[in-house]
Amino acid sequence: MTVTHHPAPATAPRTGLWLIGARGSVATTALAGAAAVAAGLHPPTGMVTETAPFDAAALPPLDSLVLGGHDTASVPLPKRAETLAAAGVLPHGLPTALRAELAAAEERIRPGAGPEDPRGTEELIAGYAADLAAFARAHGLARTVVVNVASTEPAADAGAPLPPSSLYAAAALRADCGYVNFTPSTGLRHPRLADAARTASVPHAGRDGKTGQTLLRSVLAPMFAQRALTVRAWSGSNLLGGGDGAALADPAAAAAKNAGKARVLADTLGAVPEGEVHIDDVPAMGEWKTAWDHVAFDGFLGSRMILQTIWQGCDSALAAPLVLDLARLVARCHERGLAGPVDGLGFFFKDPDSGPADLSAQWMALLELAGRLAADGAPPGGGGGARNDDASPAARDGR
Amino acid sequence: MTVTHHPAPATAPRTGLWLIGARGSVATTALAGAAAVAAGLHPPTGMVTETAPFDAAALPPLDSLVLGGHDTASVPLPKRAETLAAAGVLPHGLPTALRAELAAAEERIRPGAGPEDPRGTEELIAGYAADLAAFARAHGLARTVVVNVASTEPAADAGAPLPPSSLYAAAALRADCGYVNFTPSTGLRHPRLADAARTASVPHAGRDGKTGQTLLRSVLAPMFAQRALTVRAWSGSNLLGGGDGAALADPAAAAAKNAGKARVLADTLGAVPEGEVHIDDVPAMGEWKTAWDHVAFDGFLGSRMILQTIWQGCDSALAAPLVLDLARLVARCHERGLAGPVDGLGFFFKDPDSGPADLSAQWMALLELAGRLAADGAPPGGGGGARNDDASPAARDGR
Amino acid sequence: MTVTHHPAPATAPRTGLWLIGARGSVATTALAGAAAVAAGLHPPTGMVTETAPFDAAALPPLDSLVLGGHDTASVPLPKRAETLAAAGVLPHGLPTALRAELAAAEERIRPGAGPEDPRGTEELIAGYAADLAAFARAHGLARTVVVNVASTEPAADAGAPLPPSSLYAAAALRADCGYVNFTPSTGLRHPRLADAARTASVPHAGRDGKTGQTLLRSVLAPMFAQRALTVRAWSGSNLLGGGDGAALADPAAAAAKNAGKARVLADTLGAVPEGEVHIDDVPAMGEWKTAWDHVAFDGFLGSRMILQTIWQGCDSALAAPLVLDLARLVARCHERGLAGPVDGLGFFFKDPDSGPADLSAQWMALLELAGRLAADGAPPGGGGGARNDDASPAARDGR
Amino acid sequence: MTVTHHPAPATAPRTGLWLIGARGSVATTALAGAAAVAAGLHPPTGMVTETAPFDAAALPPLDSLVLGGHDTASVPLPKRAETLAAAGVLPHGLPTALRAELAAAEERIRPGAGPEDPRGTEELIAGYAADLAAFARAHGLARTVVVNVASTEPAADAGAPLPPSSLYAAAALRADCGYVNFTPSTGLRHPRLADAARTASVPHAGRDGKTGQTLLRSVLAPMFAQRALTVRAWSGSNLLGGGDGAALADPAAAAAKNAGKARVLADTLGAVPEGEVHIDDVPAMGEWKTAWDHVAFDGFLGSRMILQTIWQGCDSALAAPLVLDLARLVARCHERGLAGPVDGLGFFFKDPDSGPADLSAQWMALLELAGRLAADGAPPGGGGGARNDDASPAARDGR
Repeated sequence: MTVTHHPAPATAPRTGLWLIGARGSVATTALAGAAAVAAGLHPPTGMVTETAPFDAAALPPLDSLVLGGHDTASVPLPKRAETLAAAGVLPHGLPTALRAELAAAEERIRPGAGPEDPRGTEELIAGYAADLAAFARAHGLARTVVVNVASTEPAADAGAPLPPSSLYAAAALRADCGYVNFTPSTGLRHPRLADAARTASVPHAGRDGKTGQTLLRSVLAPMFAQRALTVRAWSGSNLLGGGDGAALADPAAAAAKNAGKARVLADTLGAVPEGEVHIDDVPAMGEWKTAWDHVAFDGFLGSRMILQTIWQGCDSALAAPLVLDLARLVARCHERGLAGPVDGLGFFFKDPDSGPADLSAQWMALLELAGRLAADGAPPGGGGGARNDDASPAARDGR
Repeated sequence: MTVTHHPAPATAPRTGLWLIGARGSVATTALAGAAAVAAGLHPPTGMVTETAPFDAAALPPLDSLVLGGHDTASVPLPKRAETLAAAGVLPHGLPTALRAELAAAEERIRPGAGPEDPRGTEELIAGYAADLAAFARAHGLARTVVVNVASTEPAADAGAPLPPSSLYAAAALRADCGYVNFTPSTGLRHPRLADAARTASVPHAGRDGKTGQTLLRSVLAPMFAQRALTVRAWSGSNLLGGGDGAALADPAAAAAKNAGKARVLADTLGAVPEGEVHIDDVPAMGEWKTAWDHVAFDGFLGSRMILQTIWQGCDSALAAPLVLDLARLVARCHERGLAGPVDGLGFFFKDPDSGPADLSAQWMALLELAGRLAADGAPPGGGGGARNDDASPAARDGR
Repeated sequence: MTVTHHPAPATAPRTGLWLIGARGSVATTALAGAAAVAAGLHPPTGMVTETAPFDAAALPPLDSLVLGGHDTASVPLPKRAETLAAAGVLPHGLPTALRAELAAAEERIRPGAGPEDPRGTEELIAGYAADLAAFARAHGLARTVVVNVASTEPAADAGAPLPPSSLYAAAALRADCGYVNFTPSTGLRHPRLADAARTASVPHAGRDGKTGQTLLRSVLAPMFAQRALTVRAWSGSNLLGGGDGAALADPAAAAAKNAGKARVLADTLGAVPEGEVHIDDVPAMGEWKTAWDHVAFDGFLGSRMILQTIWQGCDSALAAPLVLDLARLVARCHERGLAGPVDGLGFFFKDPDSGPADLSAQWMALLELAGRLAADGAPPGGGGGARNDDASPAARDGR
Repeated sequence: MTVTHHPAPATAPRTGLWLIGARGSVATTALAGAAAVAAGLHPPTGMVTETAPFDAAALPPLDSLVLGGHDTASVPLPKRAETLAAAGVLPHGLPTALRAELAAAEERIRPGAGPEDPRGTEELIAGYAADLAAFARAHGLARTVVVNVASTEPAADAGAPLPPSSLYAAAALRADCGYVNFTPSTGLRHPRLADAARTASVPHAGRDGKTGQTLLRSVLAPMFAQRALTVRAWSGSNLLGGGDGAALADPAAAAAKNAGKARVLADTLGAVPEGEVHIDDVPAMGEWKTAWDHVAFDGFLGSRMILQTIWQGCDSALAAPLVLDLARLVARCHERGLAGPVDGLGFFFKDPDSGPADLSAQWMALLELAGRLAADGAPPGGGGGARNDDASPAARDGR
């Protein structure tokens, strides 16, 4: 296990993780979790970069991360953490144990611009970039990765001003920071940012973290394809509360999210089957989510069969470790001089910049990236990257 | 699509497919399905070997297969086919459309030995081998593959006489036939057959076709492992009628089957989680099966999450196309001179002779085998075997 | 069992059952089923009026029913029956066995008015009433019950002309026929028909047959209420193909249907919990329907619990026997001189004219009605109507 | 609402609630919950006797209950409560808030006899009865109800000595205490206690609290029967951790529990359908339980349909309020002079002493009992007991 549970030596470079939506559920969970895992209070369950295949990738240690961010919300981090503990997302007692860390991070949050802000596009980008530069200076950071975990915004109209997610993305590039869009919002995918994204001198990745229903689809759809079973209809319903439920009750926001969900089926099945996906705001669900999928498929001689799945998870707890994974990977890419869209990160996204939609193919691509990131350029695990060998997650320490 | 829908030219070699349990549901469905697909009455849904990656593998055409077999049951094939049509497994009208083929196949079935048969082990093996030789002679077969699809027998006691499945397996080797064990029964895995299996001059493969719950597990378990999510308990219940339900109501037979189911979890998760698997005989289910799985797993910071799956399928319709796939692949291995346990067929089995337990890794291994089988030794699809390229099932004709 | 399996004696009065939507799935299944059960080809599974509590209610025998109806569709009944058999709704072979009955019924179907029909409201009502009178004359019917089983129409605008369902309803009253609205369409519930409905000289009942998800809700919601468990959210998704799926894909039609679904929760829980209901048109489902319900409820000390239900059924097969039940009950009400909305039929409807929403209370009310209908006015079962006595369905013949 | 949230007046009689298994999950939850609800910290969710129909039944107020009990376990109540709070059964903070109450109750627990206890049957009964008498004296109790909530014991052999549950039951009768058996253990159902149970001068009730899967079955099975739908197979799987999971992993204990589960189907369907029930010990589930049910049923013309239910609950949180309900009801029965098995409590039990198996019929019987218990003998709600009137739970205060 690469977590050392000790402060990084004074000479170790420090890496910034700047969260857009820094007082939200995902950011709070990421922050509390990074501190808790670094302190040895909890095992790194759910963190892909803490498994054996990444041992040699020279990723920044968890305890070298410094977290800050922008937010338009005003509930302070320590209070937000208490709310998450009451909802069962964070362990009881953790907000108290991490009181100092939460308060320190709260000090590092800068206000985002609300809808009434009089500043124009250029002013806003410049202001955000200045915030990022100040953050790096104040904490002596070797580099910073900006990760968007803010509420999903409605699908952008190409003619309108840049949406907030795109302003933050542009600021990241301007401030020479890596960038990750963990939401379905536009971010770097705006037509007016296409050139900047392609020619960026920093690495970036997106879009829309793959945490539940689509994660499942990315292993089930290839199974149907490989077995030559014809999927006739794939229908889904998602029930979720929290801020995400309310945000996605906006049909425009849901449309952005559903586009990502459909892509995995189109790419792996060769065609989009019948069926819709619903996202319902159910405040009584709190931070928990239930996703039901119903797959009607044909077998031999037209026999009709059905697979149903029910996924009951906590989105913040699923997303937070992946946010940490992505920040570490993109920071290391930056350190190794990679720039532009990073190949090999589709494993984390519903709607990746490139690459296959099949989770296992994405996993292989991620392992290749880990190999490229290794200090000596050797494949991960120090050997041939053989999948059922020491590159397997099952082989990681402590399993 | 390699199916020609025309009789093979007179000069084409014919391949025998000899089914142990030739009057059972799987065998009847395989026989009716092979005829229906070869005649162009139905698309080859569920047949892996009819997808694009196998186009160049030079497998025996479906209409070059001649089916026969052993059985101890006496209900003739045409009547069994009618029963399956009434149960919704075969399309209505198909038994009538294939009356001639079913009657011809019925003529090629030889009686298996019942429990009261006075013959000893050696006599039985010799008798079965003679049946195989006669079958080849009568139909001018280039080669024959024996596939066991008989009801699961109780786990064998090493000290006892060879169980029936092992007698048939030994006969296959003696008659120089390829052999596939599609059931959890002992077959070639008997200690007294270990040497013969290892040094066989013919290819063989097993054990226990992966058609439903375990197929799902072989894609879901790697997902949990790759995402570093800790599976705490994996519990399952299977409800099935038909002959299989009754056979598996015998705890000894269920034990054989459950061993295979557990293996996929152990191999992919690194440890067997808590949880049991039940197999219930529910005659009201007829030929249909429902499998419920409940996976309790931990996410970040110990958050508790649950995945449930419900699979409703028809085992015969799932198994039959795979039986045809295996027969074609093993026959081609035989033709190419491969002998002993065939690498690359784990994709089809719960308890494969070798190789990974993860379905996507098994798929890659199967594609490699397809490449080795190609007439010119080139990789499948005529190119680099790139997974998201023309080797993808989504790229196959007609999708 | 009251079914005699013999033609009614020549002197027995004949009862007409006039179906609006007579060539649809429900009507075709009702017609084929009535003939099949009357002929002894199938047991009366799903027919409430064939259970013991109705033995003494003097309902018209199944074989005394004469079926006819209106439809705007042109696919003839025998062909429609073949389609339903291919879809697994009707048993294979039944359309052939009932060829004569289907052809005869087809002759008794009259065209309904399409949207382009130039006739005005009064003309249409008069025309439909004339069709009903001609039907009664031609077959010597003692009385006729009109049952609406046509596709759901969009919710009516009070200012607009009467919608088709209301025209047929008005025609039924004018022709002195009993009337049942088995759909969520307006029917007699139009404000301009309120007086006519209240003062009708014939019995009528509605609205929206309760066949699946709402049936379940009408027993589950009372359970939560009686156990003092607080339902926080009740969410549902329905996947259905057939004509019904397409009709309900129209949001206006879905709104009519969902109003009925919500009512059962409001009435039994005392408040409508959070949660939406989706109805998806999934043509691949054919005549089959899947309904998933997710109920989040609180237990003692605020503990969070969840109940999920998955109902997989065939709407036509669920609706058809209830249509026959209602026709027989309303015909007998007519014979006994009951007029206006019939108390005691809420058991069959999502949105009944009156009475409780709890299925068991509706069942008690239905048993009371059966008692009132008995020839001698005595309660059903010849005794005190005690629920766990001989009035129990479990006590009916042959169970 | 009858809860006053104030201490009972000094002159109010106090009622004892003596729990067999007083340090277990159910008992601890009941104790903490009674205190929390009486103090106004939580609403009485899940307590049937706190709904409107019981307003006039003159039940002992919650804050007049004094809890004590026997247990062979040694983990003290305050520590057990902490464990339950960590598992999410009790709200965080509640054990601290109720520290004084928990400590006081811990003082009132007496040791039960372990398997090595040298005392004979008569000595044990006398000792337990003496404990009950001392409890009543010490706290000035008007009367006491003994409730068995101990782990399920293996099915008793009629020839063997009385099992522990029967010893405690006999002691209750001897000490003139009401008795409730909330478990599937033998209790008063032992042949050698049959005479004592029948001629008891105190009221008693049992057996096996109905909290989850069987509760559902008791509303679903009547639905199938009333709709004349033929249930062909009813299969179930239960996954549970905690002490109950381990106890029920013993096949003999499971047999006792499953007998109760089967009874509700036999009584309401008229016959026991195919299908098994499994109870799996899954320690990872902690205090939570998942029950999956699969019901295969036939509709009209033999169409095959399926209902599945998934119940995810916490048994302690479901059982505890019912334990308080039963204690209050049986205490009031005792006060009113009722003796022997109490009619009208089948609502609470899987395997009731008498009465119907259908939940709604049981609810009607319970309402009748509530009427008999009212101070003036009038029906509940002060009126005709009309079900959809003011006797409805939906009409209770505050809902």
